Amino acid sequence: MTIFDDVVLPAARKTHLTGSRPDIRVPMREIGLTNGAAVVLYDTSGPYTDPSFTPDLAAGLPRLRAGWSATPGGGTQRAHARRGAITPEMEFAAIREGVPPEFVRDELAAGRAVLPANVNHPETEPMVIGRNFLVKVNANIGNSAVSSSIEDEVEKMRWAIRWGADTVMDLSTGKRISETREWILRNSPVPVGTVPIYQALERVGGRAEELTWEVYRDTVIEQCEQGVDYMTVHAGVRLAYVPLTARRKTGIVSRGGSIMAAWCLAHHEESFLYTRFRELCEIFAHYDVTFSLGDGLRPGSIADANDEAQLAELRTLGELTAIAAEHDCQVMVEGPGHVPMHKIEENVRLQQEWCAEAPFYTLGPLTTDIAPGYDHITSAIGAAMIGWHGTAMLCYVTPKEHLGLPDRDDVKAGVIAYKIAAHAADLAKGHPGAQAWDDALSEARFEFRWEDQFNLALDPETARSFHDETLPAPAAKTAHFCSMCGPHFCAMKITQDVRRYAEEHGLAEEDALTAGMREKAEEFTRRGARVYLPIDPA
Amino acid sequence: MTIFDDVVLPAARKTHLTGSRPDIRVPMREIGLTNGAAVVLYDTSGPYTDPSFTPDLAAGLPRLRAGWSATPGGGTQRAHARRGAITPEMEFAAIREGVPPEFVRDELAAGRAVLPANVNHPETEPMVIGRNFLVKVNANIGNSAVSSSIEDEVEKMRWAIRWGADTVMDLSTGKRISETREWILRNSPVPVGTVPIYQALERVGGRAEELTWEVYRDTVIEQCEQGVDYMTVHAGVRLAYVPLTARRKTGIVSRGGSIMAAWCLAHHEESFLYTRFRELCEIFAHYDVTFSLGDGLRPGSIADANDEAQLAELRTLGELTAIAAEHDCQVMVEGPGHVPMHKIEENVRLQQEWCAEAPFYTLGPLTTDIAPGYDHITSAIGAAMIGWHGTAMLCYVTPKEHLGLPDRDDVKAGVIAYKIAAHAADLAKGHPGAQAWDDALSEARFEFRWEDQFNLALDPETARSFHDETLPAPAAKTAHFCSMCGPHFCAMKITQDVRRYAEEHGLAEEDALTAGMREKAEEFTRRGARVYLPIDPA
Repeated sequence: MTIFDDVVLPAARKTHLTGSRPDIRVPMREIGLTNGAAVVLYDTSGPYTDPSFTPDLAAGLPRLRAGWSATPGGGTQRAHARRGAITPEMEFAAIREGVPPEFVRDELAAGRAVLPANVNHPETEPMVIGRNFLVKVNANIGNSAVSSSIEDEVEKMRWAIRWGADTVMDLSTGKRISETREWILRNSPVPVGTVPIYQALERVGGRAEELTWEVYRDTVIEQCEQGVDYMTVHAGVRLAYVPLTARRKTGIVSRGGSIMAAWCLAHHEESFLYTRFRELCEIFAHYDVTFSLGDGLRPGSIADANDEAQLAELRTLGELTAIAAEHDCQVMVEGPGHVPMHKIEENVRLQQEWCAEAPFYTLGPLTTDIAPGYDHITSAIGAAMIGWHGTAMLCYVTPKEHLGLPDRDDVKAGVIAYKIAAHAADLAKGHPGAQAWDDALSEARFEFRWEDQFNLALDPETARSFHDETLPAPAAKTAHFCSMCGPHFCAMKITQDVRRYAEEHGLAEEDALTAGMREKAEEFTRRGARVYLPIDPA
Repeated sequence: MTIFDDVVLPAARKTHLTGSRPDIRVPMREIGLTNGAAVVLYDTSGPYTDPSFTPDLAAGLPRLRAGWSATPGGGTQRAHARRGAITPEMEFAAIREGVPPEFVRDELAAGRAVLPANVNHPETEPMVIGRNFLVKVNANIGNSAVSSSIEDEVEKMRWAIRWGADTVMDLSTGKRISETREWILRNSPVPVGTVPIYQALERVGGRAEELTWEVYRDTVIEQCEQGVDYMTVHAGVRLAYVPLTARRKTGIVSRGGSIMAAWCLAHHEESFLYTRFRELCEIFAHYDVTFSLGDGLRPGSIADANDEAQLAELRTLGELTAIAAEHDCQVMVEGPGHVPMHKIEENVRLQQEWCAEAPFYTLGPLTTDIAPGYDHITSAIGAAMIGWHGTAMLCYVTPKEHLGLPDRDDVKAGVIAYKIAAHAADLAKGHPGAQAWDDALSEARFEFRWEDQFNLALDPETARSFHDETLPAPAAKTAHFCSMCGPHFCAMKITQDVRRYAEEHGLAEEDALTAGMREKAEEFTRRGARVYLPIDPA
């Protein structure tokens, strides 16, 4: 499976912005336009899109951060920030975002942002997740008991970041979990997340009641040693909340949540993730692993959205966020799931209020249950809205959600849908600079610079191929119309004529609309004011 | 091109609800479930999905409404409503919506809803468009100078309604415009809309300045005679507004708007659509053709959203809405376009305020410009939101938007994305009964009734095929897991065990969580509380 041959997007060039020291080289994607201008975009694709880099999966990526701030026990990025230090990681992330390093530091210190960077994952290109930064996208990969191989998963990671995934989660539950993760980590330039309870459960033969704190802890430590950057911990699924799910339409739909619920019921004891949470904080702080506090009781259907079980857990996640802060741990909080549009904003408001503004990280949410096969769309709607309201990272949903494991096409469809949602959210938040991309593309469209319109698209190949389906001739790419309206009815062609005339004659000024206009109108008509180009496109 | 062989969706059965007279037979789609229950859904597909009906495109559909209220000059549905009458059309539409006929009548009388039904289109199954009804979806079809045939367009219409389009607009601009429209009308069970200025422009050889009121009027009358149910009229593009577009990022992007702008400039005169609007009202009232007041100055990019040109035109559309009301004409008002999320609600608020609550009918809006090839998604986000805020009908956008003419797959992708948006809006508005569909599907999902989950999906075949890709064996369709998590990690399987246990032991009651629980927990474990089914799916 070599899906990465066509790795570099058309007209794109890898550039680097250099920081205060020569080894802080921040990658960007520069798109050259036919009018001589260029647009520079955030780049998640890693060294793979650098023509000077030769990939060697067995050797792994260069250890970019070796020698930077990160050493085991040396303090988390949050700890550094709280004592006022700006680490190379912070500066790197700040340059990517186009903000001062001090701003990244202050947001980390306040717990409003995280910089997931395990000391044992020096291959990562540092990035920051928080509501005052660009909205990020996570892509889930990972094999299951019934499908896929290690190679497939590594290629899915590389495919996901090519399309713009900011982090990946390895949710493997099948065979060779550790080996799969090792390959992904050594070759991933983006932070990698996991859900350690999956591997812990495998170690006790799939019997939830046989899980113990010790088995879980040892699993976590193994993953910390490997370099996992953030881990989902379902420590908010408390014994008392399990009965709250009994009358739900779809009960508990989180794997981790259901495992811990089963454990709590079997033992009739409080969850060990909750009772041992401080010990977990010590481990996470040692490696600077970021908490992703899992929403094990998230709603799995429209009917269950924002219910008592969900909100009870969220309050507990707030309590745990505060404990993690005492250990200088970095914390994100996970959110739903399935939520109708009118209940989306409340999710962000309560999470921000109860969890001390820790970054929110949501799965969608899906805004209706009726469209399996299209849940990248049902959820892109919710993701865009929740991103606008302040969610910092969006976990993608692919078309296969509820139905099967995503393949290459599904991963791409999911990432693209979520890049759309994230960017729409950036626009709605008024993120500085976000609209420049839209403006560049719209200008290209209005000026019939078809090549630029394709190359600026989130998915250049698809845009080009759709255009080529009806007008494949090279001349069509310089034509002042397309197949939608044909040459007679191209609004943009007509409006260009109108604009040119209006501008030449000062019509943009209010007072120019009075006397003498009849004469000008006649002149416009004399000059042959045709509203279409007399070109036959055939 | 026979795309309609597989016309009936799986497990779906055409049923009819009969009204106060035997010829009011309202079609519904009943989906039979494996547990003996059934879900009954709104049905737009027309007689084509009735096994007792044999299509004959040359003969056209049965003239369902022949002999009902509609006669030329006999008064519009709005006129009937204003004098307190309930027409068969109103009753038919009320049964479809599940509301009393009086409610439809009152909404029509108030101008808050329209029932587009030209007296010369007796083939239509009456439906109602308004913010207090289900959100509707329009699909654009029509050939252009560079592509497609009459047969293609008729089949696109039938394909669009199969997937749930509530109306179609024939936007043909190529050869044989009248003939194409005739075939579509005689075979369409849904209201058909057009933009008459396109055909009028063809009649003057594509030279906008040669357009006259007389040419336009005669074109409109021809289309009224054929049976077009609603027509887009860009009467709000006034001379004084044209200069407001000069400094826009993307000028005028509406074809009709650009044609009228060119005419106004060439003559330096007020638009004849504006000055002759009352005469147009008389024609429309005679045939009961519904106005769709076009937004010729809608924004074509994020940068141009909610600008002075757009809002100036909207105020004029409000003025024209009031004039149309004097003639008892039915009126919708069209809206954008390209709008970032934070500016969407304002569009509805101003339109409802300025246009006397006339139904709003928007094209998307697209929430970002950066994803040509995926504008069904960029716009489904905006469409869902604007529908929630009160838009009555959503004009679909296909993946080919900005790039080419939609083919069969694009039409389906566009309709599905917009059915998702419309239904998400219905849910968020709290439309009575909307959630029953989601609940039925989610219950099927939770109970591992895979066949029901597929059959209840908006697109059953796609849902089924995605599931089959990884688990094709028939046994997988009764399995209590899927390929996503495999049998070990199925949250819903685990939670069913948890729920059963909790319910058996009264754990849903607060006080049951106190004494004696240790004993119950031991019993749960004794009974073999495995959290997965020991099944190898291979």
